[in-house]
Amino acid sequence: MRDVAVIGVGLTQFGELWEKSFRELIAEAGAKAILDSGISGKEVDAMYVGSMSSGRFIGQEHIGALVADASGFSFAHVPSTRVEGACASGGLAVRQGYLAVASGMHDVVVVGGIEKMNDVGGTSATETLATAADQEWEAFFGATFPGIYAMIATRHMHDYGTTREQMAQVAVKNHMNGVLNPYAQYRKEISLDAVLNATMVAYPLGLLDCSPVSDGAASIVLCAAEKAKKYTNKAVKIIAAGQASDTLALHARENICTLQATVHAAKMAYKQANLTPKDIDLAEVHDCFTIAEICAIEDLGFVKKGEGGKAIDNRITTRDGSLPVNTSGGLKAKGHPVGATGVAQVIEIALQLRGDAEKRQVPDARIGLAHNVGGSGATCTVHILEAM
Amino acid sequence: MRDVAVIGVGLTQFGELWEKSFRELIAEAGAKAILDSGISGKEVDAMYVGSMSSGRFIGQEHIGALVADASGFSFAHVPSTRVEGACASGGLAVRQGYLAVASGMHDVVVVGGIEKMNDVGGTSATETLATAADQEWEAFFGATFPGIYAMIATRHMHDYGTTREQMAQVAVKNHMNGVLNPYAQYRKEISLDAVLNATMVAYPLGLLDCSPVSDGAASIVLCAAEKAKKYTNKAVKIIAAGQASDTLALHARENICTLQATVHAAKMAYKQANLTPKDIDLAEVHDCFTIAEICAIEDLGFVKKGEGGKAIDNRITTRDGSLPVNTSGGLKAKGHPVGATGVAQVIEIALQLRGDAEKRQVPDARIGLAHNVGGSGATCTVHILEAM
Repeated sequence: MRDVAVIGVGLTQFGELWEKSFRELIAEAGAKAILDSGISGKEVDAMYVGSMSSGRFIGQEHIGALVADASGFSFAHVPSTRVEGACASGGLAVRQGYLAVASGMHDVVVVGGIEKMNDVGGTSATETLATAADQEWEAFFGATFPGIYAMIATRHMHDYGTTREQMAQVAVKNHMNGVLNPYAQYRKEISLDAVLNATMVAYPLGLLDCSPVSDGAASIVLCAAEKAKKYTNKAVKIIAAGQASDTLALHARENICTLQATVHAAKMAYKQANLTPKDIDLAEVHDCFTIAEICAIEDLGFVKKGEGGKAIDNRITTRDGSLPVNTSGGLKAKGHPVGATGVAQVIEIALQLRGDAEKRQVPDARIGLAHNVGGSGATCTVHILEAM
Repeated sequence: MRDVAVIGVGLTQFGELWEKSFRELIAEAGAKAILDSGISGKEVDAMYVGSMSSGRFIGQEHIGALVADASGFSFAHVPSTRVEGACASGGLAVRQGYLAVASGMHDVVVVGGIEKMNDVGGTSATETLATAADQEWEAFFGATFPGIYAMIATRHMHDYGTTREQMAQVAVKNHMNGVLNPYAQYRKEISLDAVLNATMVAYPLGLLDCSPVSDGAASIVLCAAEKAKKYTNKAVKIIAAGQASDTLALHARENICTLQATVHAAKMAYKQANLTPKDIDLAEVHDCFTIAEICAIEDLGFVKKGEGGKAIDNRITTRDGSLPVNTSGGLKAKGHPVGATGVAQVIEIALQLRGDAEKRQVPDARIGLAHNVGGSGATCTVHILEAM
């Protein structure tokens, strides 16, 4: 396989974007990424788009073609493919774009991720998000994602002594980072007390333990690493693209506190990159709920199983800690337009490795990891990037 | 890129399958394909699934993981990815599986396609199918696919003198083939008079000019061609995988009778295979409506533009003609469970090249082409296969 580089990145504002349509958002992110990359539009060989449920949210399937069309690429007849893996749709799109270039089939590929979750007709966002859970065993009976992650959280508290305060500190940390990210949905600090005393959604998860409902799009340009210099001096290399799956329903798993898809996708990625968790300088992990970040740093091998809560206490994952996690603000503060999330995570890592992360820059960042989860962990992607 | 082979195929019955669930259908097709291939389940490295709108049809997104789970692969944590491109979802899944093997990332990949379109709650099949059209310019105003293809048909009649009889003969031919396909939804011949006098759906397309609403699943096993002999002596090679896009809305095209996505996907495929249309022994083309088959044989270069109707008169595309088209019965008679269609087309070509097509076998078939279209042509894939 050929080496693959990220040569351009583009983000829209994340948030409640009542005045912007699905088409406008993806075209904006794509145009920014192409401008950042130095390519001309006619050099684009293929496109991939991650979107979870445009069919339900905006009554539009056939999203690959729509995005090519809205971005002005339909007239060049560029192949455009939508991939879907619930909230890991963006990570899957990055991995398919990576394979398209690594295979030698295409030289320059644009990867986008998008979701428009506000200003939608029909069903509620929570109801549509529940289609990422097992319809027959979970969603049909009324289970929603806050409820599913609440079960994971209570079990984690029972098995490992994790506390509500430790979970709340994840939200506090990620909001501190979000303040420094101009694209974040929430650019304000929140106090530990505010998180602990927020409206309870599903015990032990209060409103501020949950990532928000968001609109937004993210886009990157990939090209064969050997051709990157032709376009930019700001390229970063994708040195691993791991992916794994697990049962859709929580009840079918041996241990609900371990996301085996994360464990296996990480194993695949570390093997491909010939690295261990200790080699990672910073990570974006999938904090759809605060407990999810705690599970993630355990399952990715950054700390031992059960010690994710203590890692928060010990400030390991703060921006000045030994392993900064979610410097972008994470899903919690940056926002979580589900199809865009996996692409936006790769963008934050790329910006950090380029030295372009401005006020939230981690010094001497050389190797970063992006971890994207679908649903309660039935799909996971892990990408590792390295400065060039 | 490495050469890629199809080493196993599996189909469910296509039809109104009230007694079988989405999960049962995809597990059945996958199990048949794996059994046919000679691999053991633990050799599967990755899975791809094409499905157009499971989110709307059955209230379930996250279909990649669901299919891995329903097929017993979640416990092996095999990466599983859903791709969507409306009625070309199956073709896109084949192409992504092809790239995953060609790249060297995975050795053995199972590709599935599925749609469950009957026995669904909420909206009608026609309403959900319309999400493959442009929501803002077409579907919102009430346009459905019979109406969209009717516009293509009337223009084709106006520009090239194509007749209702020529279109009707496409249906007659495909039903004759469907009689010989044990998996087809309609295994009965229909007369020219029956097609011409059927209930009008959208002039000039009557009920028997339209493919049906169907349930069904299809699955193939791909592996690196150099390893195919290890498993089977019935492998066929994928020698090209083309894909292209076009505007979503019909009004934005220069000429609505030419599907530019077909033209460009075919061009990409012929170039990769180093072949011309004259080298193709047989083809499965996307006959969602009878006019679509006429456009397809023109746009694929088998006949000149405007001569698709005459080709039917001259019996070029019948099973004993110089270029048999839709020996499976096509979407018209075999059925059109949209996500499954692109995979099922590749299966028909593979069976013909293996000499396993039984009573509908085309003698001396060496090279075949599969052509899958999304919506009114905003997405197209063209695969070319060769006997090994």
